Amino acid sequence: MPTFSERGAGMPSSPIRKLAPFAAAAEGEGVKIYHLNIGQPDIPTPEKAIEAIRRISRTTLEYSPSQGFLSLRQAFSRYYSRYGITVDPEEIIVTSGGSFALLFTFMSCLDPGDEIIIPEPSYANYFSFAKSAGAVVRTVTSRIEDGFALPPVEEFEKMITPKTKAILICNPNNPTGGLYSPEEMQRLREIVLRHDLFLLSDEVYREFVYDGAAYCSALSLEGLDDNVIVIDSVSKRYSECGIRIGMMVTRNAALRAVMMKFCQARLSPPLLGQIVAENSVDGTEDYQKKVYDEYISRRDFIVKGLNRIPGVFTNLPGGAFYTIVRLPVEDAEDFCRWCLTDFRYTGVLPGGETVMLAPAAGFYATPGLGRNEVRIAYVLNKEDLGRALDVLARALEEYRSR
Amino acid sequence: MPTFSERGAGMPSSPIRKLAPFAAAAEGEGVKIYHLNIGQPDIPTPEKAIEAIRRISRTTLEYSPSQGFLSLRQAFSRYYSRYGITVDPEEIIVTSGGSFALLFTFMSCLDPGDEIIIPEPSYANYFSFAKSAGAVVRTVTSRIEDGFALPPVEEFEKMITPKTKAILICNPNNPTGGLYSPEEMQRLREIVLRHDLFLLSDEVYREFVYDGAAYCSALSLEGLDDNVIVIDSVSKRYSECGIRIGMMVTRNAALRAVMMKFCQARLSPPLLGQIVAENSVDGTEDYQKKVYDEYISRRDFIVKGLNRIPGVFTNLPGGAFYTIVRLPVEDAEDFCRWCLTDFRYTGVLPGGETVMLAPAAGFYATPGLGRNEVRIAYVLNKEDLGRALDVLARALEEYRSR
Repeated sequence: MPTFSERGAGMPSSPIRKLAPFAAAAEGEGVKIYHLNIGQPDIPTPEKAIEAIRRISRTTLEYSPSQGFLSLRQAFSRYYSRYGITVDPEEIIVTSGGSFALLFTFMSCLDPGDEIIIPEPSYANYFSFAKSAGAVVRTVTSRIEDGFALPPVEEFEKMITPKTKAILICNPNNPTGGLYSPEEMQRLREIVLRHDLFLLSDEVYREFVYDGAAYCSALSLEGLDDNVIVIDSVSKRYSECGIRIGMMVTRNAALRAVMMKFCQARLSPPLLGQIVAENSVDGTEDYQKKVYDEYISRRDFIVKGLNRIPGVFTNLPGGAFYTIVRLPVEDAEDFCRWCLTDFRYTGVLPGGETVMLAPAAGFYATPGLGRNEVRIAYVLNKEDLGRALDVLARALEEYRSR
Repeated sequence: MPTFSERGAGMPSSPIRKLAPFAAAAEGEGVKIYHLNIGQPDIPTPEKAIEAIRRISRTTLEYSPSQGFLSLRQAFSRYYSRYGITVDPEEIIVTSGGSFALLFTFMSCLDPGDEIIIPEPSYANYFSFAKSAGAVVRTVTSRIEDGFALPPVEEFEKMITPKTKAILICNPNNPTGGLYSPEEMQRLREIVLRHDLFLLSDEVYREFVYDGAAYCSALSLEGLDDNVIVIDSVSKRYSECGIRIGMMVTRNAALRAVMMKFCQARLSPPLLGQIVAENSVDGTEDYQKKVYDEYISRRDFIVKGLNRIPGVFTNLPGGAFYTIVRLPVEDAEDFCRWCLTDFRYTGVLPGGETVMLAPAAGFYATPGLGRNEVRIAYVLNKEDLGRALDVLARALEEYRSR
């Protein structure tokens, strides 16, 4: 048998994927699992966006432009202006989900051996995209005790070598729910300028900023037009993860020309998804307000409930819909697996109930970190979240008294 | 400004893209352009497939499985069985168009510096995907005088080095329209086995095999279960290029596990496209027969018409819907540009008419080859093809007598 690429062999496996077979087996037995493990919201997609697809009058579902429909990019431009960000439609490149915006940005900016600095814990797929591009990830550690604030400038400086090409942040953050303050963003700006780096900013949770906190997009940082690439997506914003519409936004025209070569090779982004996205952007302010209020109320509910369980601690996240939770266990991955394979909360539902959580170790690059942490996505309605909290409390009690 | 990746800077630009601004300018002036330059069929998508989207009852457009819906993979499995090919749904991985099937296959099989052998002229984006993976393309040349037959085994053997990891073919071929005979496929099988290589076979034009010729899929080659990866797509088959649904098919389970890591990082293929594709596969036999007959009649029409123009030569292609045409000009790229910038067939349409062709040099890796050749896609109805032939004949006459 021919051998695979070293790149392929070395691609990390997602921490959640390892648990998937156990979840499938439990569900096969009729167990009700509360899925707090992934960011798949239960919120409906805006009705008018789905309606646009139902009314499609095209007879040939043909290629769209490699950069994405101009009308869609104009809609995105209007969207940014509502956030006080000036973006020309020409500065937007539509991709097949935020995922390929990340991959193409990595490929356009980083060669094999180049280094990229990422605060950890971080979205695990960043490690995969880095591996795909042959780039080396170096992490600066943010800590649950500090509310996962951006590590101090000195931590970044320590990591910078002649091979460093970029810094990547996710703001608001998946998996921590943390939000970087405008002051933190200014500090990042200085590092980026001093060392002439690319700043990749994943802002797919931009709407989900709570408690009236100020939000500073990387696109608002002065003097960084050539350095900043924003990764964005409609997936979470309008609960349409399946349509695969994301984008790269940069004012660096020469970089866009490079990115477009990757985009031309893959021909075009999804046609139907672009129609849905375009019909989601305008006239959905009421929808977005309702969704926003719902997430705040879920957040408050789950954070209070989690901190009430003995030995459990989590911060009140400032954004997104995730939180990292410290559990009173030594090995959270073992606990998560045990919840799926052994534990059943009985007496309420006939098949029993359990929870699925994402072990946090996979979100850290530094070995040993996050072993007693999990990530929770509060993407279920409050009734289910309440049940999930009861189930988790009982599971922890039983696990620790084995 | 930070510097881009060497990979990005070195990505080839598509030969057609360079002409795009000239075409846009001409169309802006009201000139009617007959687009023979791209494989975007004018054929309608099956009505029942679009109808499935119009009747969508989902309220949340959520992620689908990373491998693609099981029901879609089962439909593809049934499709293959109609072609006498046994493929288990488990052996299929759905991707965002054939493009990402190619990229992920390259990334899974090839490391930077690894070599892949491709017969030229070839689909230009193979060069882009190779560059993305850092792989080195070595070409064996097929010739218009030989009807673009597979080059002899010795040509392949000459190219094989310790770094050779794979051979890639496209069958039926884009851009030549050539079809590899079962005997040629057996010869490939022997090379692949002898040197333990991957065989990547792009079979997106499988339906378009003409004149009752025998078709041999790489999946039918004996003893190559661990070596063969078929790249496939519904784009051309059902004229639904825009939905971005392709697939990788391999019986090599360990390789699939590697490919799945790339697929998990990008989360899922497009949801809506999968619904269209699943509704295209079964019950469209009449549609496919009609489309097939239409392409045969277009092929016969355009090939006869082309060969009637003084100094023009093209083979009768055995498959797909392209043909490479030798023109009585020295520099076909210059001629193609001139057609867009200078030439107007006047007297029939008020704004004038012209043709857009794809210069063939971009389909060759060897410098200097294909300079007097273009690729023509016969994706227009016969009335427009007839006009395009008249316009081309006049353009050649005028170009040569300047």
